[in-house]
Amino acid sequence: MESARTRPSTRINRLGEKQSESRERLHELLDSTPLATVALVRDGHPVAFPTGFARIADELVIHGSTGSRWLRALTDGASAAVSVTALDGVVVARSGFESSFRYRSAVVFGRFERVPDDQKLDYLETLMDTFIPGPVAELRSSSRKELAATMALRMPVESDNWSLKISAGWPEDPDDDVAAGAWAGLVPLTTAPDVPAHTPLPDSVRAMTGTLRNMAAHRA
Amino acid sequence: MESARTRPSTRINRLGEKQSESRERLHELLDSTPLATVALVRDGHPVAFPTGFARIADELVIHGSTGSRWLRALTDGASAAVSVTALDGVVVARSGFESSFRYRSAVVFGRFERVPDDQKLDYLETLMDTFIPGPVAELRSSSRKELAATMALRMPVESDNWSLKISAGWPEDPDDDVAAGAWAGLVPLTTAPDVPAHTPLPDSVRAMTGTLRNMAAHRA
Repeated sequence: MESARTRPSTRINRLGEKQSESRERLHELLDSTPLATVALVRDGHPVAFPTGFARIADELVIHGSTGSRWLRALTDGASAAVSVTALDGVVVARSGFESSFRYRSAVVFGRFERVPDDQKLDYLETLMDTFIPGPVAELRSSSRKELAATMALRMPVESDNWSLKISAGWPEDPDDDVAAGAWAGLVPLTTAPDVPAHTPLPDSVRAMTGTLRNMAAHRA
Repeated sequence: MESARTRPSTRINRLGEKQSESRERLHELLDSTPLATVALVRDGHPVAFPTGFARIADELVIHGSTGSRWLRALTDGASAAVSVTALDGVVVARSGFESSFRYRSAVVFGRFERVPDDQKLDYLETLMDTFIPGPVAELRSSSRKELAATMALRMPVESDNWSLKISAGWPEDPDDDVAAGAWAGLVPLTTAPDVPAHTPLPDSVRAMTGTLRNMAAHRA
């Protein structure tokens, strides 16, 4: 097992009051999305790969082709930083300075190891079942050839190799900004996936949220 | 300007047919979300920081406190990989092997530079206006003290320092899997932000999507 000394610090420097030590909240975030971004160093450069992942018990599990260069770098022992973020909304304050995002963000540091062949099928099926709950039992079994072309990698989530930052509060506007009477609030960021990129927000919703306009439409 | 040689390759090794060279599609992705994950190397280790960003013309722009250690590492010249991903759904095939995610993913490589003081206010206001379209004009102006505590960083998006991967197709199930009559399709991944984590999906929606169950409920 790798010692904490060989890893980056998990202490959050800025806005340290947002750091959470709660394993339960960590799992909640990790279980809420299948998307992680894995950072590693290649030829001295930082590189980043988005990938599907699942938390299975106390491990982060990813998978992919045995021909993947970045996965092979990981199984060869490259250090990794696994970043998982949920962006929950925009906090609109009375000033730009106090405005911020509402988010939950975790980074897990460590090294992945290749799941041994005799456990691979179990890991892959559990992974598949978290990506798309249900169908594993309905799909045809993986062929020997498919299994041979796929590898699963796991990284332990230990007591000290992760950090979690949760921004869930309200703006801390100075009293005179509050007294000036401007609106403040939370604007959710999620648009349904079947809404085309340039669809403007209806006036009714705009009125409700006060300020939101369709970002894509605005910036196109 | 940094030469391409000092950067990681932007050629995609696996599933190279998904690589897109379209600057328009790149901008579309960058403009669709304010969330980027910035990877850099610190003390030899990869580290990753989620952050709000905006594409402003041909630059990626981020901002933060002048006291932020990782932003200072960037302004001191650290190489960065900026990863932006949209996860659009899960493609359910007739086998686990052919199942996949539908996603769009970009990485931009390079170095950030600090925006000079005489341009900072413009950058910050444009950034704010992409995060929350509209209110810049309505909010009180930033104070001199607030501006002094904030820095803006920019990285050029050039002709050759980015890669874009778009997975938008359907499973390539072998003929005998298709003939076996199993369902295949796309399961969208987005749940409205005000739905509590453990809410089960109603039967009607489950029936429509065929297989989807609420991930959080399933994995809790």
